[in-house]
Amino acid sequence: MTESNNNDHLVKSDDSQHPANLIPELCKKFWTLGWVTGTGGGASIRDDDLVYLAPSGVQKELMKPEDIYVLELSKQLDPKQRIYLRSPPSLKPSQCTPLFIAAFTKRGAGCCIHTHSQWAVLVTLLLESQSNKNLFEINNIEQIKGFGKGYQKQGALGYHDTLRIPVIENTPHEEDLTESLEVAMDKYPDTYAVLVRRHGVYVWGETVHKAKTQCESLDYLFQLAVEMKKLGLPWLSDIA
Amino acid sequence: MTESNNNDHLVKSDDSQHPANLIPELCKKFWTLGWVTGTGGGASIRDDDLVYLAPSGVQKELMKPEDIYVLELSKQLDPKQRIYLRSPPSLKPSQCTPLFIAAFTKRGAGCCIHTHSQWAVLVTLLLESQSNKNLFEINNIEQIKGFGKGYQKQGALGYHDTLRIPVIENTPHEEDLTESLEVAMDKYPDTYAVLVRRHGVYVWGETVHKAKTQCESLDYLFQLAVEMKKLGLPWLSDIA
Amino acid sequence: MTESNNNDHLVKSDDSQHPANLIPELCKKFWTLGWVTGTGGGASIRDDDLVYLAPSGVQKELMKPEDIYVLELSKQLDPKQRIYLRSPPSLKPSQCTPLFIAAFTKRGAGCCIHTHSQWAVLVTLLLESQSNKNLFEINNIEQIKGFGKGYQKQGALGYHDTLRIPVIENTPHEEDLTESLEVAMDKYPDTYAVLVRRHGVYVWGETVHKAKTQCESLDYLFQLAVEMKKLGLPWLSDIA
Amino acid sequence: MTESNNNDHLVKSDDSQHPANLIPELCKKFWTLGWVTGTGGGASIRDDDLVYLAPSGVQKELMKPEDIYVLELSKQLDPKQRIYLRSPPSLKPSQCTPLFIAAFTKRGAGCCIHTHSQWAVLVTLLLESQSNKNLFEINNIEQIKGFGKGYQKQGALGYHDTLRIPVIENTPHEEDLTESLEVAMDKYPDTYAVLVRRHGVYVWGETVHKAKTQCESLDYLFQLAVEMKKLGLPWLSDIA
Repeated sequence: MTESNNNDHLVKSDDSQHPANLIPELCKKFWTLGWVTGTGGGASIRDDDLVYLAPSGVQKELMKPEDIYVLELSKQLDPKQRIYLRSPPSLKPSQCTPLFIAAFTKRGAGCCIHTHSQWAVLVTLLLESQSNKNLFEINNIEQIKGFGKGYQKQGALGYHDTLRIPVIENTPHEEDLTESLEVAMDKYPDTYAVLVRRHGVYVWGETVHKAKTQCESLDYLFQLAVEMKKLGLPWLSDIA
Repeated sequence: MTESNNNDHLVKSDDSQHPANLIPELCKKFWTLGWVTGTGGGASIRDDDLVYLAPSGVQKELMKPEDIYVLELSKQLDPKQRIYLRSPPSLKPSQCTPLFIAAFTKRGAGCCIHTHSQWAVLVTLLLESQSNKNLFEINNIEQIKGFGKGYQKQGALGYHDTLRIPVIENTPHEEDLTESLEVAMDKYPDTYAVLVRRHGVYVWGETVHKAKTQCESLDYLFQLAVEMKKLGLPWLSDIA
Repeated sequence: MTESNNNDHLVKSDDSQHPANLIPELCKKFWTLGWVTGTGGGASIRDDDLVYLAPSGVQKELMKPEDIYVLELSKQLDPKQRIYLRSPPSLKPSQCTPLFIAAFTKRGAGCCIHTHSQWAVLVTLLLESQSNKNLFEINNIEQIKGFGKGYQKQGALGYHDTLRIPVIENTPHEEDLTESLEVAMDKYPDTYAVLVRRHGVYVWGETVHKAKTQCESLDYLFQLAVEMKKLGLPWLSDIA
Repeated sequence: MTESNNNDHLVKSDDSQHPANLIPELCKKFWTLGWVTGTGGGASIRDDDLVYLAPSGVQKELMKPEDIYVLELSKQLDPKQRIYLRSPPSLKPSQCTPLFIAAFTKRGAGCCIHTHSQWAVLVTLLLESQSNKNLFEINNIEQIKGFGKGYQKQGALGYHDTLRIPVIENTPHEEDLTESLEVAMDKYPDTYAVLVRRHGVYVWGETVHKAKTQCESLDYLFQLAVEMKKLGLPWLSDIA
């Protein structure tokens, strides 16, 4: 196999901000946060029509630019048949791919992150016994201001706004989450994240910066919510 | 725009102790401590009349000296109109600015740190249901000796002294905290910190060293206080 | 003693993937995860008939390639008498050796990791008061997919599968665990791990990659299980 | 002041194992473990008659060899008057000094570590309401084997042995702990550590290696003990 056939040039760049360099850098950081333990989780960056994806089943803190998959967003017409511009030899594409693509096509996201954060999983477990088990809600916490108001809207949520993150049920095969993820996106058009019960969370943003900082803010809120539950403190409060 | 016009020389120094080098270094450390997650929190250093400030909305662990704002403390006559000696292009000044300035002008602080530490937030939440919800108090813990006795006083608090940190209510816009922060400073003239309910904490000190180590000591005490609550242990005790 | 006599060449390699380089690298990482605190725990890699072992009693984050023991698997006929191809002077072989060897001989493992993770210990303590105290079971958590189906089987566990990890009782001398470890392996032929009550866990895999990522996934599940217990959430659930 | 007058040569060495290089290296590590937050805690190494000490009030993760104090153990005849071979200008000697010296003179220790670990503090708080509030006891946990049998004894504690760590009451001035620390050492001649209520712990060992790994093992057990308390699990159990 020659280099050009495999399109290796797509993942070779001296620019630290190139998606093929950024994804390994991000995943290394996410590993230290416990978000991508044991090959779980992943990340994808979209640059115009090109989508860069972390592969399946690799140690996320050891990933290298040459491990990155690349595809053209506009050419993914048949969801059952994925065509890659670049496939690293001896690796497998991530089952998260159709979910990342949903964020790119339905929300114009520039980056989508998937974590297995325990705080996310615990929040979905705590919700299971509640009346509205498919919606995480929290308000009156400053960190909520870390989220944008929503799709094609200007500005950020306010301190008194209620952050709402829909929860979808997990499925045995990750790609089968795509339909319910898209349903949740339709029902909550302004959300930047969808929780997956007993699994983790998908978070996106217009840019890498926004996806990452929204993911951090959300994980912060999930951890806070779990600690609040341990201490008997409610997630929603009535402050003028 | 020429370099001199933008006063880039104010943030260029080979000295690792220069405020424009120190602030990114500190914020990187604070990020690993979970204090400035998702662009939250910040830090400011005063060198005589010059005030150096972390910008708003940046990933705090990736900040660079050229991202730093600079202003002259003596020239900030109108709180509604902030004049910067140096504004990094394409960044926004921090909403924390007037709060940092309050610590500099009212207490002669040399550094002020703002964290979104979850331990700080949880302490303010736990206080909400208490009779005196606007004051965190703890005593008889060695780490209390990490705090100075107070404004223009010599020496440190003692082991038996009660550390008192006032709590102010959060507001939708961070700069609107300024007035209540100043009221809290007036009511507790010797405090080196003010908690903001459901938000975080502001901590200052005469020097970078003192602000940072007081912030660490306080975060230690907040975490300890939350764990004590989980274990049914009271924050105040009666030891001779 | 000459270098060739001591077989130092067995642990000298420029290849970062050589077992004598990998073991210190892994142990350094494990130390930051709290798995090998205070010289506890360890790791071993098998390369065909050669077995590389971390020594006993060293600070695991400071280990060097020259600290590694080497033996030939096929030559270990008498379990009471261990013959090393290479023994570092002034170090002692690990008491875990026969347990690592059990994973290599009975399961054809390529790597075996032993941690003292507190989450593993707490899980075994929580099980002590349960009717089936010798088996940790959890299901319907995505991270379960991080485990292979079992010895000589293809593919991974599914989301709805129940992960079962047997628990054996601790003994005063670590090598005395060997028999009960082997009994547990026989009873649960598809397990990739055995918990040791009040002690920790042994985890293996066909390759270093699989042993490490299965160990991470398991530690994730142990931590989650402890947090679930604190929050009153059951480890087993009935989801179609 | 000339360099020789200040005995700077005592802290200048290219050997990474020299005490003046080791202490900053250790303290940096301890800072990441939360043991020496906000200038709290410290460490001292004895090399024959020379004692090397971390100074008071410095950021422990930023300490440098030139910050180290040195004294001669045999020349410390009057506990009220400490004579230093080397005193760094503009720093203050640690109040822990007489406690470190107690470990060196009464137990022949080669290294003594003082942490403000929250797990240590929480253990002393949990003991306050117990009948025997001055003794932490735990047994049947593998990590107990991380401790030597005691002063001038060979070998390590066994799995079934009960680890006993005496607790002394805190005093406003740290040097005033010396007498009760020595009383506790006399009452528990085989202990390698003394807890200080609401303050932290002192841990020593014959070598740096032993002091550090015993300190790690102890902190592990303190954390485990706190988590056991949260989960309703007893510290002592009756296993044959």
